[in-house]
Amino acid sequence: MTDLSTHPTQRASAWLADFASALERADIEGVQALFAPESYWRDLVAFTWNISTQEGPAAIGDMLRARLTETAPRNFQVEGQASEAGGVLDAWFTFETAVARGRGHLRLQGGKAWTFLTTMTELKGHEEKTGAARERGVQHGADSGRQTWLERRQQEDAELGITTQPDVLIIGGGQGGIALGARLKRLGVPALIIEKNERPGDSWRKRYKSLCLHDPVWYDHMPYLPFPDHWPVFAPKDKIGDWLEMYTKVMELNYWSSSICKNARYDEGKEEWTVEVERAGKTITLRPKQLVLATGLSAVPSVPEFAGAASFKGEQQHSSQHPGPDAYAGKKCVVIGSNNSAHDICAALWEKGADVTMVQRTSTHIARSDSLLDLALGGLYSEQAVARGIDHHKADLIFASVPYKIMAGFQIPVYEEIKKRDADFYARLEKAGFMLDFGEDGSGLFMKYLRRGGGYYIDVGASELVAQGKIKLKSGVAVERIEEHGVRFSDGSMLEADLIVYATGYGSMNGWAVQLISQAVADKVGKCWGLGSGTAKDPGPWEGELRNMWKPTAQPGLWFHGGNLHQSRHYSQFLALQLKARQVGLATKVYGQGPVHHLS
Amino acid sequence: MTDLSTHPTQRASAWLADFASALERADIEGVQALFAPESYWRDLVAFTWNISTQEGPAAIGDMLRARLTETAPRNFQVEGQASEAGGVLDAWFTFETAVARGRGHLRLQGGKAWTFLTTMTELKGHEEKTGAARERGVQHGADSGRQTWLERRQQEDAELGITTQPDVLIIGGGQGGIALGARLKRLGVPALIIEKNERPGDSWRKRYKSLCLHDPVWYDHMPYLPFPDHWPVFAPKDKIGDWLEMYTKVMELNYWSSSICKNARYDEGKEEWTVEVERAGKTITLRPKQLVLATGLSAVPSVPEFAGAASFKGEQQHSSQHPGPDAYAGKKCVVIGSNNSAHDICAALWEKGADVTMVQRTSTHIARSDSLLDLALGGLYSEQAVARGIDHHKADLIFASVPYKIMAGFQIPVYEEIKKRDADFYARLEKAGFMLDFGEDGSGLFMKYLRRGGGYYIDVGASELVAQGKIKLKSGVAVERIEEHGVRFSDGSMLEADLIVYATGYGSMNGWAVQLISQAVADKVGKCWGLGSGTAKDPGPWEGELRNMWKPTAQPGLWFHGGNLHQSRHYSQFLALQLKARQVGLATKVYGQGPVHHLS
Repeated sequence: MTDLSTHPTQRASAWLADFASALERADIEGVQALFAPESYWRDLVAFTWNISTQEGPAAIGDMLRARLTETAPRNFQVEGQASEAGGVLDAWFTFETAVARGRGHLRLQGGKAWTFLTTMTELKGHEEKTGAARERGVQHGADSGRQTWLERRQQEDAELGITTQPDVLIIGGGQGGIALGARLKRLGVPALIIEKNERPGDSWRKRYKSLCLHDPVWYDHMPYLPFPDHWPVFAPKDKIGDWLEMYTKVMELNYWSSSICKNARYDEGKEEWTVEVERAGKTITLRPKQLVLATGLSAVPSVPEFAGAASFKGEQQHSSQHPGPDAYAGKKCVVIGSNNSAHDICAALWEKGADVTMVQRTSTHIARSDSLLDLALGGLYSEQAVARGIDHHKADLIFASVPYKIMAGFQIPVYEEIKKRDADFYARLEKAGFMLDFGEDGSGLFMKYLRRGGGYYIDVGASELVAQGKIKLKSGVAVERIEEHGVRFSDGSMLEADLIVYATGYGSMNGWAVQLISQAVADKVGKCWGLGSGTAKDPGPWEGELRNMWKPTAQPGLWFHGGNLHQSRHYSQFLALQLKARQVGLATKVYGQGPVHHLS
Repeated sequence: MTDLSTHPTQRASAWLADFASALERADIEGVQALFAPESYWRDLVAFTWNISTQEGPAAIGDMLRARLTETAPRNFQVEGQASEAGGVLDAWFTFETAVARGRGHLRLQGGKAWTFLTTMTELKGHEEKTGAARERGVQHGADSGRQTWLERRQQEDAELGITTQPDVLIIGGGQGGIALGARLKRLGVPALIIEKNERPGDSWRKRYKSLCLHDPVWYDHMPYLPFPDHWPVFAPKDKIGDWLEMYTKVMELNYWSSSICKNARYDEGKEEWTVEVERAGKTITLRPKQLVLATGLSAVPSVPEFAGAASFKGEQQHSSQHPGPDAYAGKKCVVIGSNNSAHDICAALWEKGADVTMVQRTSTHIARSDSLLDLALGGLYSEQAVARGIDHHKADLIFASVPYKIMAGFQIPVYEEIKKRDADFYARLEKAGFMLDFGEDGSGLFMKYLRRGGGYYIDVGASELVAQGKIKLKSGVAVERIEEHGVRFSDGSMLEADLIVYATGYGSMNGWAVQLISQAVADKVGKCWGLGSGTAKDPGPWEGELRNMWKPTAQPGLWFHGGNLHQSRHYSQFLALQLKARQVGLATKVYGQGPVHHLS
């Protein structure tokens, strides 16, 4: 049907028309025939009430047989102009389902779909009140019982969680909880955020003092309220902390600070949680329908049990407990680990005049911040991208349009380029004894982040200190045991230490479910994060999407939310829509929930 | 030279080319010949280091003879597409001067300029660090003396005004002071804001509790950080208060709250001010180069001296002191005045069950909020305007492109339309005895605002209460005297009162100079605001611009800043550029400062 001589937009329209017509006839074979043998349909909530990717026509057919009738998709329209490069046609489109409006993206190769993305943007009848639909703010006319905005806010604040129950309880008031809270507020879902710190933003403020975001500003916007255009490329932690605090206030979030969630249990019959929260010395029982753990991807510290640790006479701490360098000038510091935290902590200690050694046990991926900015992120998230019309809304969708299965293939050439560009730098690091890798398949930093949530350092200066020997390096050894005055290694050598920092990472987010709910529920939902790539720390089988993130888990009413600022922004949209649908009682039959393969 | 058969953009380009070429040759007659006999060149700082309008070719020639050489204008380029309607060609353009870049607007009629606007957008070499030029935030690399963002902020906060001196001292930390502070921050001018209230935003929070902005959201954005798109059309006062507080924080303004400026005097020799400020019980002496009074257009309360006021046994207060209605349920309240404050206060008192009478001494202009939104503001500031590509940046410049001399002519048809649309409403008000006007020339609300800063009510409901007699009306009388138990009128009648509110307006902003500096300096600079239109409360001669606002005054180093949120946003740009130019020592010879005609 498609004529290759016509404009890409016409060909995209023709493909979409064929697709829509096959859907309308419930001609599933007809739909399958429009997809290439290697093809991917990624759905963010619109068809599957799940975040899932169907790989290949057979899987696509299975999904449609299960979901087509209830979804009732229609009104597919190309949005803007399609374009073509290297034999791949790119097009945006909009569509509707029975209950929602959506936006999608399509890549055609030889007239057949290679990648296909469907995302839900809003639920019909439950749209956010924005633009022309925004609230008036004032109710014109006179009304002797009028309640002011302030009185309403104060009433909501006084009542929610006390005399009324939130529909959604979010544990963790960092960027993730706040972004989700803002989405739910605009959707009119009563939600309450519980945060252990005193103020929104403290989860940033309390980290080591030289910390700046490792991702650039274009990648980091919160929903609805982008940073002003003078915001620094890499925002310092206290500045981001202040922004989050302000954001929480102006978005009118219901936020209990200095509050700790003690435990939670689910009543399958009532379909609600009973959650005990300690607030200002008082235990308060909450009964939300939905419980979201937004306690952070890096949340449950993981400290290896080294023999003899109890005998150490100095100070020892997990990186998450490290107070910063100020107390350690002139002290002997050993930092075990060689990823982001280890590098940042070593550099700050060195700056304060500590004698610092990094212990590298296994190879690490290093990418220089500037190179990442220029080569890895710049196409989607940069001033140049914005100038080309790719703001972060568009960039998020373009990024989402690449299925995880083929993402590594998109990434490998980027890191080949980085290797070339920074060849001298890498050579100097290796000369200093540093063990480098670029991921098992050379796909670099972002794939490592998705697969295992770590294993890399974004270089903002510490690598130079390592190369120059200013940060000393003990590399390629295991820790044998901790002794009274230092660390003994597998090669028999010994390093004296006043301070040992275990920059040894974090466990899976379902560790939080162990602490707050039960081991049984944590095991029922299984490991969070990771794709099942079969690479180190990400055992198979292949999952196709991040495990348990932003989508239904095996435990009804339990959700996980987290990730970097980009993910908090982008995926909070889909999590919020799933929660809204449940709040208003829409049918939300979930398609494609797989079995649990790993417990932690 | 211009060929009427060509596209408007080509004709605008041709006119600009002729104009630029005449300027380059210093051919002032040649420039004059390009302007129509009735024509206006409005300049915001770019040519005149002033806010001034030259009316007619002769005045334009005079200005150029004084300013052309130093300004050295060049590189005039049409921006975007010109358009034509009703015989008027509209075009945007950019240009440069010796020291700045600018943007302008041009209206041609019959090939000659009718209106011509030049505005300064940035000083060369002193551009705001935005977009691709934004700061990195982190200084990559290791530096053992590194100071964090937080440490720098804390140091600035601890030192500015104590051990270092601000270049600019802004008295008044409401929307005006805050907007200007943000501009100066981005321009790198050390500035300090002094505010008597405890928190930024309190100047809104402390007003009567039902208050919402009377202008719609599209008109009210602060610089750099627009409201998110769910922001209500008419923001409630506490919500705006919170926004300003957040804005002050995230824009990193140096803001002394709970601080009172006691007095200021200028040392002509040193060219600096000595200002005494009371902060936390301590008197601190500041020595800024520039002093900005941003204490509000409605700042110095004006209370007529009624005979017998001292004998009144009840409570009496100026509208600015009115605490809101809560204490007055069932009480007899007399509100003297019939403009915005009077209406708002009467409606709130009625809502709380007070027996309330409005005393209307002279006629008032009433415009319904919805009609203003649709007919007066909607073309530039509305969701529809945004959809047509007119955001508030563009709208501000379009608005600025209409010289005040012909603005009333643009406004009259709008109010003719409003009269028709709301004929029933006005008839009911008149039937209730309310004395209406639309300004002496029928030009309505905004011209009244510019000419006299009042004389109207934007109806958000109180007028209906007046029409229905729920707010009682005593109209067309003067107050004879205040007696022990009420108000005696010129017609001999008497109104008993437990409360008298004097909603009698405010004096000119130079009243602040009387209080803070001296009567002599206040008289030297003269009256602020008003155009010299020769209408009530705005005596001539014609000034062409608002007196003393956002531009140099007769007192070196003294500036006035204020107005609604639109004006605070828009004019803070030009005031900030003037202050920046002085901070860095650019030559800023001011053209067109007129004599002072009125002292207050």
